[in-house]
Amino acid sequence: MNTKLNALLDAMTARTTDLHGHDFLLTWERSEDELRTILDAASALRLLRENNVATRCFDSGLAVSLFRDNSTRTRFSYASAANLLGLAVQDLDEGKSQISHGETTRETAVMVSFLSDVIGIRDDMYLGAGHTYMKEVGAALDDAHREGVLPVRPPVVNLQCDQDHPTQSLADLAHLEREFGSLENLRGKKMVMSWAYSPSYGKPLSVPQGIVNLMPRLGMDVVLAHPEGYDLVPGTLERAEQQARESGGSFTVAGSMDEAFDGADIVYPKSWAPFNVMERRTDLLRADDHAGLKALEKECLAHNAEYQNWTCDHALMERTAGGKALYMHCLPADITGVSCKRGEVTADVFDRYREPLYREAGYKPYVIAAMMLCARFGDPAAILRDLAAKAAPRAAE
Amino acid sequence: MNTKLNALLDAMTARTTDLHGHDFLLTWERSEDELRTILDAASALRLLRENNVATRCFDSGLAVSLFRDNSTRTRFSYASAANLLGLAVQDLDEGKSQISHGETTRETAVMVSFLSDVIGIRDDMYLGAGHTYMKEVGAALDDAHREGVLPVRPPVVNLQCDQDHPTQSLADLAHLEREFGSLENLRGKKMVMSWAYSPSYGKPLSVPQGIVNLMPRLGMDVVLAHPEGYDLVPGTLERAEQQARESGGSFTVAGSMDEAFDGADIVYPKSWAPFNVMERRTDLLRADDHAGLKALEKECLAHNAEYQNWTCDHALMERTAGGKALYMHCLPADITGVSCKRGEVTADVFDRYREPLYREAGYKPYVIAAMMLCARFGDPAAILRDLAAKAAPRAAE
Amino acid sequence: MNTKLNALLDAMTARTTDLHGHDFLLTWERSEDELRTILDAASALRLLRENNVATRCFDSGLAVSLFRDNSTRTRFSYASAANLLGLAVQDLDEGKSQISHGETTRETAVMVSFLSDVIGIRDDMYLGAGHTYMKEVGAALDDAHREGVLPVRPPVVNLQCDQDHPTQSLADLAHLEREFGSLENLRGKKMVMSWAYSPSYGKPLSVPQGIVNLMPRLGMDVVLAHPEGYDLVPGTLERAEQQARESGGSFTVAGSMDEAFDGADIVYPKSWAPFNVMERRTDLLRADDHAGLKALEKECLAHNAEYQNWTCDHALMERTAGGKALYMHCLPADITGVSCKRGEVTADVFDRYREPLYREAGYKPYVIAAMMLCARFGDPAAILRDLAAKAAPRAAE
Repeated sequence: MNTKLNALLDAMTARTTDLHGHDFLLTWERSEDELRTILDAASALRLLRENNVATRCFDSGLAVSLFRDNSTRTRFSYASAANLLGLAVQDLDEGKSQISHGETTRETAVMVSFLSDVIGIRDDMYLGAGHTYMKEVGAALDDAHREGVLPVRPPVVNLQCDQDHPTQSLADLAHLEREFGSLENLRGKKMVMSWAYSPSYGKPLSVPQGIVNLMPRLGMDVVLAHPEGYDLVPGTLERAEQQARESGGSFTVAGSMDEAFDGADIVYPKSWAPFNVMERRTDLLRADDHAGLKALEKECLAHNAEYQNWTCDHALMERTAGGKALYMHCLPADITGVSCKRGEVTADVFDRYREPLYREAGYKPYVIAAMMLCARFGDPAAILRDLAAKAAPRAAE
Repeated sequence: MNTKLNALLDAMTARTTDLHGHDFLLTWERSEDELRTILDAASALRLLRENNVATRCFDSGLAVSLFRDNSTRTRFSYASAANLLGLAVQDLDEGKSQISHGETTRETAVMVSFLSDVIGIRDDMYLGAGHTYMKEVGAALDDAHREGVLPVRPPVVNLQCDQDHPTQSLADLAHLEREFGSLENLRGKKMVMSWAYSPSYGKPLSVPQGIVNLMPRLGMDVVLAHPEGYDLVPGTLERAEQQARESGGSFTVAGSMDEAFDGADIVYPKSWAPFNVMERRTDLLRADDHAGLKALEKECLAHNAEYQNWTCDHALMERTAGGKALYMHCLPADITGVSCKRGEVTADVFDRYREPLYREAGYKPYVIAAMMLCARFGDPAAILRDLAAKAAPRAAE
Repeated sequence: MNTKLNALLDAMTARTTDLHGHDFLLTWERSEDELRTILDAASALRLLRENNVATRCFDSGLAVSLFRDNSTRTRFSYASAANLLGLAVQDLDEGKSQISHGETTRETAVMVSFLSDVIGIRDDMYLGAGHTYMKEVGAALDDAHREGVLPVRPPVVNLQCDQDHPTQSLADLAHLEREFGSLENLRGKKMVMSWAYSPSYGKPLSVPQGIVNLMPRLGMDVVLAHPEGYDLVPGTLERAEQQARESGGSFTVAGSMDEAFDGADIVYPKSWAPFNVMERRTDLLRADDHAGLKALEKECLAHNAEYQNWTCDHALMERTAGGKALYMHCLPADITGVSCKRGEVTADVFDRYREPLYREAGYKPYVIAAMMLCARFGDPAAILRDLAAKAAPRAAE
């Protein structure tokens, strides 16, 4: 353990980052060094945990969670991350109908933060709302901290918003790092983020946006594929192109899965709703227009159904590099014949990749914990070094 | 830190109190020394926490919470308090329609207490019920402890009942202590607990009752102001008068905000429902009479609307001592133009006091933790002294 | 404490058990030595706790809970057990209508387990489903552990299924051990598991099945009594007979309470639904047939009503050995004149046994904690010995 751990901690120490005391909202606001530090801290925490070394760096403290959408995976990842560091999760359950206006957001943010060390928020239902909300919370916490009302300014961790899903995309990147040996090995690899058919609508855009606005930074050749009209939030493509230019990778858009999958090293086929549908849906949700929502759903499902052939199957996988591209998904996937009649992926492809898919999901708790650690401590490597030196057993020995 | 901490702990040690092993239900059941001990313990816990000293005095243990009404603020305060001492919160969710009769109360009380160290209860929906319920729970725990069924008799902490809201009123008092320098400095200060208009009805009486049955004990000149008919629970006024007589303060009732605010040092304008409305509402709730409840709500809102001018605005604040009385509220306030068209307070007044209002709310977790500490330990000052001496960091350093 | 504790730990050490790394699903899958080890570990944990010795053997870690049916008692017992060992409870709330098919069960099981140390499941609504589900979860965890996806394979603890309720029956056995001085003293005692009238239907079979498939192993003379038609799951009686043969006890079925209670040392009168009703109910629940469920309920309540005289009253208790058999119940009981007009037991009998009934319930947290401890650690006695030697106070002293 120690050699590998020291390499991670030395790398962390060598970098200059500005994570301490800041919210983690969007990967594209953070430098490459900062992202690498998150990944290294996640790996270090995992290494310690898997060697039964206690990683509590809080004797007590609360990790607030606010989930404005159902979640099992992210909820457990957040709970695991908080617990790993010694924090107790306290959930803020807003009730269903409440959409807070500015003033109440400010007050609620302070009221839940008096003895809190971190706040995790998932808010991906309304286009234009989630990220804005998190910034409002952050601003309220800044004010209250400046005024001395809050002795600790708990950082906000974005557990999914309308723009990005950083805990997912960084867990995905941690998975790629392990599968390909290093981040450097990802350079020049072809990665496809593709739309795929699902018999449901309104799936958030944050995963595809998070992927195409992260992976081009690694020097990869990223291809976004989707049927006409399934656009992402404006600005996403321009940002991806800019990132590719800076890293020496590339970013292109394809109009078919066939074209995109040709020679791909990594494929990520996943359904999402078109940007303009999400906009209309947001208006209807805000207006509480149930009939309108029903009508929109019907319209979209019919539209989706035109692209039922956008399924990741054996034939498509055969087009990839050596027929064995790494298949990725944020889970749960809509699997043909298993969770639906026809879905994003066939059962044979999914089954072949179940083990790596589950492994991919397993990085998320550590990525979240790393975000907490780096946001709360000025020298997270020193904290981890102390924990390793103390080597208190997590489970009795 | 140490000088201030030692002063607090020495003061605690010097007093004779009977908090250990007892429920904390009503402030007027507790001696002034006991209330001061709660405040001092709260201050000491805060001092330790803000100096990053771990305050866990339980290695494990449960803090049961039972909220019979929605709550965010008190729920987080309770969770923070439990966590501060090392306890894990376990919520007892009774479901909506269940009103326990005597027998079941007894059984439930024991069933949740086998490994529990404290029980926090919020039960303010039914007049005549909340306090009674807490006493039933306490009696059941006494029996089970005497019989040896429970090795520890977890004390009950009143998180709001139909009669009192001690964690609120003591947090308010902690706020006053800090704002005015000491409890002694409150002597002779004029404090106004005033009804204020809100476009909602059925707001509990426990806050105004808690205030007018606590603050007169500090030698303050307490004025209760409300429109005709907005009476508090019988006995409240007599108790306030008696307290004022004993402390050398005064207690009077005023029929207008203007009169009450004249020269006031502290104002606490807040809506509540008339006692007789709460009585009728209780009967209707027990009868599950939805139509009756709707009708009562309509009647009361119309009645409230006659007093829309009972709003704390700039002109009213100008009447107070030097135009700068301390404005207080238990939050959330109904703010004109922000959370409602017309409410308890105008936005300009609220905004001017936002920082102290948030600070006021920040005392509650520590007050609750102090109640837990003093109820569970015979010599809480010694516990705190040990924690200070050990000086284990709460967050890694 | 030490003499008693050492006796328990020595007994544990002397036995060969295969509890480590295994799910605890059904008592009849476990050897008598294994059951005794659970009871001894439970007693040791209790002894430590009641002597204020900290029993945390996890510095951090999650205990997942999945309750597919309402529960207060078992939920608090589980939370207490997890907390006793240092684990934080994280609840998996599936929502109401979801019945997972095979694939999703596998995925969910892994997703909640990355940093989890134990999984407690209550699933007793569908005949033929609960135990099957737990086995599916266990198989998924085995796979994921073998593949290296899960570094720790969290054991499953059955908190009640369609076949057994081992945490209840073992808590009941711990109660009997204390009441009669030892497990050996139970040999030859007559214990009656009797159906009793209740004005509700659909009560699970797991308690009577758990009792009649555990107590005959202790050499007791177990009598199952019920009206015609109130059969248990097929195989239960045969297993009970086999157990009695092996232990030298006996197992018989009686058709009346009078007959069964004659000379009994222990009586356990409790309502349950006939096996075939539970089968029909399962079909209707799966079909989401509300009308059918209503009709079945009506039919069954009418059928139940024919046996209103199956009530445990003073006269019946007089028939027992010396008129003072130990009355047992898993709680809550349907008490005549208290929780219903006519129920399983009269108030005078219940009141006479309230103290032992509450004591009986108090064993459950320790039994669950013992199951967790023995499933997670190869040498639980050594863990407990270390805790005793360290003697860290649970609550500050």
